[in-house]
Amino acid sequence: MRKTIDPAGWWSLTPGPANAITDVAGVRVGQRTLLDHGARTGVTAILPHEGDLYREPVPAAAEVHNGFGKSVGLIQVRELGQIESPILLTNTFGVSACATALIRRAIAANPAIGRGAATVNPLVLECNDGGVNDIQALHVIEQTANEALAAVSNRVAQGTVGAGTGMRTFGYAGGIGTASRAVGSHVLGALVLANFGTMSELRVMGRRVPPIRAQEVTDKGSVIVLLATDAPLDARQLGRLCRRSPAALGRLGSYMGHGSGDITVAFSTAKAQALLPDAELDRYFLATVEAIEEAVLNAIWHGTAREGYDGGLLPEFRRHYEDLS
Amino acid sequence: MRKTIDPAGWWSLTPGPANAITDVAGVRVGQRTLLDHGARTGVTAILPHEGDLYREPVPAAAEVHNGFGKSVGLIQVRELGQIESPILLTNTFGVSACATALIRRAIAANPAIGRGAATVNPLVLECNDGGVNDIQALHVIEQTANEALAAVSNRVAQGTVGAGTGMRTFGYAGGIGTASRAVGSHVLGALVLANFGTMSELRVMGRRVPPIRAQEVTDKGSVIVLLATDAPLDARQLGRLCRRSPAALGRLGSYMGHGSGDITVAFSTAKAQALLPDAELDRYFLATVEAIEEAVLNAIWHGTAREGYDGGLLPEFRRHYEDLS
Amino acid sequence: MRKTIDPAGWWSLTPGPANAITDVAGVRVGQRTLLDHGARTGVTAILPHEGDLYREPVPAAAEVHNGFGKSVGLIQVRELGQIESPILLTNTFGVSACATALIRRAIAANPAIGRGAATVNPLVLECNDGGVNDIQALHVIEQTANEALAAVSNRVAQGTVGAGTGMRTFGYAGGIGTASRAVGSHVLGALVLANFGTMSELRVMGRRVPPIRAQEVTDKGSVIVLLATDAPLDARQLGRLCRRSPAALGRLGSYMGHGSGDITVAFSTAKAQALLPDAELDRYFLATVEAIEEAVLNAIWHGTAREGYDGGLLPEFRRHYEDLS
Amino acid sequence: MRKTIDPAGWWSLTPGPANAITDVAGVRVGQRTLLDHGARTGVTAILPHEGDLYREPVPAAAEVHNGFGKSVGLIQVRELGQIESPILLTNTFGVSACATALIRRAIAANPAIGRGAATVNPLVLECNDGGVNDIQALHVIEQTANEALAAVSNRVAQGTVGAGTGMRTFGYAGGIGTASRAVGSHVLGALVLANFGTMSELRVMGRRVPPIRAQEVTDKGSVIVLLATDAPLDARQLGRLCRRSPAALGRLGSYMGHGSGDITVAFSTAKAQALLPDAELDRYFLATVEAIEEAVLNAIWHGTAREGYDGGLLPEFRRHYEDLS
Repeated sequence: MRKTIDPAGWWSLTPGPANAITDVAGVRVGQRTLLDHGARTGVTAILPHEGDLYREPVPAAAEVHNGFGKSVGLIQVRELGQIESPILLTNTFGVSACATALIRRAIAANPAIGRGAATVNPLVLECNDGGVNDIQALHVIEQTANEALAAVSNRVAQGTVGAGTGMRTFGYAGGIGTASRAVGSHVLGALVLANFGTMSELRVMGRRVPPIRAQEVTDKGSVIVLLATDAPLDARQLGRLCRRSPAALGRLGSYMGHGSGDITVAFSTAKAQALLPDAELDRYFLATVEAIEEAVLNAIWHGTAREGYDGGLLPEFRRHYEDLS
Repeated sequence: MRKTIDPAGWWSLTPGPANAITDVAGVRVGQRTLLDHGARTGVTAILPHEGDLYREPVPAAAEVHNGFGKSVGLIQVRELGQIESPILLTNTFGVSACATALIRRAIAANPAIGRGAATVNPLVLECNDGGVNDIQALHVIEQTANEALAAVSNRVAQGTVGAGTGMRTFGYAGGIGTASRAVGSHVLGALVLANFGTMSELRVMGRRVPPIRAQEVTDKGSVIVLLATDAPLDARQLGRLCRRSPAALGRLGSYMGHGSGDITVAFSTAKAQALLPDAELDRYFLATVEAIEEAVLNAIWHGTAREGYDGGLLPEFRRHYEDLS
Repeated sequence: MRKTIDPAGWWSLTPGPANAITDVAGVRVGQRTLLDHGARTGVTAILPHEGDLYREPVPAAAEVHNGFGKSVGLIQVRELGQIESPILLTNTFGVSACATALIRRAIAANPAIGRGAATVNPLVLECNDGGVNDIQALHVIEQTANEALAAVSNRVAQGTVGAGTGMRTFGYAGGIGTASRAVGSHVLGALVLANFGTMSELRVMGRRVPPIRAQEVTDKGSVIVLLATDAPLDARQLGRLCRRSPAALGRLGSYMGHGSGDITVAFSTAKAQALLPDAELDRYFLATVEAIEEAVLNAIWHGTAREGYDGGLLPEFRRHYEDLS
Repeated sequence: MRKTIDPAGWWSLTPGPANAITDVAGVRVGQRTLLDHGARTGVTAILPHEGDLYREPVPAAAEVHNGFGKSVGLIQVRELGQIESPILLTNTFGVSACATALIRRAIAANPAIGRGAATVNPLVLECNDGGVNDIQALHVIEQTANEALAAVSNRVAQGTVGAGTGMRTFGYAGGIGTASRAVGSHVLGALVLANFGTMSELRVMGRRVPPIRAQEVTDKGSVIVLLATDAPLDARQLGRLCRRSPAALGRLGSYMGHGSGDITVAFSTAKAQALLPDAELDRYFLATVEAIEEAVLNAIWHGTAREGYDGGLLPEFRRHYEDLS
């Protein structure tokens, strides 16, 4: 991304080795893309570590910036300050199938769940891909979720893949993007499911990009941001990271539209270390803003033009941008 | 309830005609109870009015008192201050099926949903009935939800029915309870799905009730409270009602246990009237506390002893209480 | 308190040695009462430990149950999860003088404050004693705060003293009350500035108390609750304690009136220990409810009848209660 | 501002006639600047309308983006959804004097306050100007507040005046800035007290501005944003405007530093009109982001170099920027 669009020093911090959320050791991402029968959708799975999350939850926080959304699991994340299941991203009407898949998976690994042991809190976040995907068909089923979970690795495909398959980012084919920043000996990574923004308002590293079309549809999307770090932060501190997310969205030209479900979830993979003092968080805040901004740009940079189930089209940003340059 | 337990003036306000949430004109409740194949569970449906909620949402608020819970739909209720679907109550692992049923139902009535029009926000709240219900079997399916929705009327069965079938209230067979209070020319009604409380801590109108058993299991339940009123209140004011809920729980002897998902949702059915000034809310606050307290007592008063799928037993409160008196 | 009102086992847990917030080692309380020139007011100071709080802040949380109040300092307590100044309680219009006193005191001990080092966050909470105190006279000045701070000890005078001098609790002369509960090897203490409640709604350990007067004024008071513990809890967990406060208020017969500023602040004095797991919090939640309930009862039990600056009178609860018994 | 820095179409919406918060009819601003005896501070007063705010409060909301701040009055604004006093901006240690001035002023106009009528909720917001102002001297006194209140008009001086006298914005002499946007027949105005940002991170309409100095101090400031509109919005909707503020800060290059108290307050001056539907808020959200961004730029554009009480210097942005161009 960096070299291709603008090498001119828009960002201050240095990415991690892969410039991806998987730069945080142990974090893996898997995706399943559905393209048959009118489907332009899928599931993206994020595993915070290699163990069983129900037995070894990670400290976590969640923040709802604009609540026009249908994600599940956030209430308990906020109360207990931890995540106890894999994180799944999908479309709005795929949430229930994904949640059920996570419940069955947790029961299979922990047969006492709901029988003596507490139930499990599935964490599933969503955006509405109804612009090109036939969302009423409920294409995402439990199997889709399981296939995404089975596909996890430390490589992250970007653009119109997995949950991002039918997503629209600033009017372009977008979807999944990732980026990271090094902070001292630690790293902070972001992964976004980007389905928000108005084409005419897009700013790419400080430059407005003329829209392709004169007329444009209203911003009715959403954006889900996941933040991961190996720095020792507790739930309260991770919540402070989450609350920096809107600053990154603003840099891109978002005004956080009425119809957008804008949510950030953050977790730490650090174990049993002394917590970082809050006074040292500033670098993490800057890293958060930069990683989210670049992750969204990566989502549209890697997006492939999508024809919708009903003949509509999501145009390709990269081609348009290179024509301009 | 009142005459049978204690007529001595514990409460200050007068109930509505049926002492039920359906005293609020237009509100209907339907239930489906599942008792076969190890099931001790079900669904309870609440319809705020007779129209289509997607097209005519009601002003609403939601408050999470303790977030160890898996309810869905609350984020958008809080952002937009309205409810746009029927409200379903069920067990923890029945949430996804209920949400899917609500989505399909909304699409059937509004074919533009997710295709030009916005998606719909299903509102499903839950407690864990795993003590007597084989929750791993996922007994609740879309059909269960649809049957509860089809059964709505202005009568409310109480105790171990619908979503309350397998619930444990202060250690007893409990579940669904309702009550109401008149406030001037208006009425406020409460309906609870009660699955919380420690047997040894129960207070019934100011009197501690000796527990049946010396040993008791930890409080790992939850309580869902629904409040309805025909008074003209907006989302902010309804939120103030919701925040009185813990005062009612405290009267009953609850300390709001760690493992409890305690959530209150409130809505108003009033249309196009001048809002009530906040200074007139005190009577509504008192009505809220009294209606919730009595609704929970009604839930255990009407509970039927339940044998669990694994041989455990939820004892009957009424028999125990009458033995004491 | 316990023996005098009702020994019959209303509470389940055992108080600490002094049944006071000062059972938490290191916590001290000081008070200054103003009774001249129409004043019926004062200041109550709470010191979480013997060191300098600016240099050694304590983990803390704050929760606003009903926000009709003018307390200062809560925003930063919530963001950083810590308290960095003594805590002062006073009347609504005494807040500014108390805050200024805390600022000057912190500067005197830490000359770099606001000059290289960060500023200090004074924490001052209030109730409105305008019913008997001539609040417009702004009787509380910096000196009042300093005198309360100078008077700290591990003894806590209760009733109509310090900030509680002119407060009305369920219609009676009330004010400052305290209580504590042992939880394993730890202790949890509560101190309240109680200025809330409707006389006709008061419940004393489960019994309604007939009001003295047929007519009564509206509940326009507030209640400030401070919780202290030596258990190792972080800010998120302390916030969970705070959210149990309304359950205690409900037990007393409060419906949390519109005009009431109901706020709870909690802090831990534990140092450098492994945090308590959340699953062990239930005993602390019960301790919180019981300690707050008893602290409020202690406030009215120890209240002395107060004649107001304008001839009004706050009656004495103890005399009335003993007449009834 | 617009013509001088960059006319190239960074913004999409059109300002109101004066490009100031006073474009909202009835809103007036007054300022008092203190420059003697080591003072580099002052007070800025904002009056939402010409009447008595205690008797005619305005619907309002407040949002804390980062809570490292000492503002007062926000709790009640959030509970009741209204503002009932003038709004004063000042330095961190001037808050108490300003609050007392507002209390005395309200009592003078409403002698029943605290005597039968409720007390008044003074609203005072602050930033720390300790970098150039001798903040320990507590230069701001009640008289300063009264003089600012007496000076209100529909003209707004910008830069290093009033509460902004000693403020540092992205490392430059900054302080008070204002801007507005027309939205249909309505207008939305912003006024900022800007004391935040890192010099090396500043973006001016999409362009990074090279810092003057190689070494720079840590961001320990704050930013207070006031939003006013004549559109008929209720408290919940105004809260949605407030939550767009971080998007504007992000555009400027802020990462919302740890030590920053970032708070937005919004009010509406509309009376007795049907509320705007939420679906029409998008233009207001965009207007919010643009007005805040431009207001901050105006603050530094109009800043005058300030020598600190201790010899430090806040450099002038405009001179530096013009040197670059």
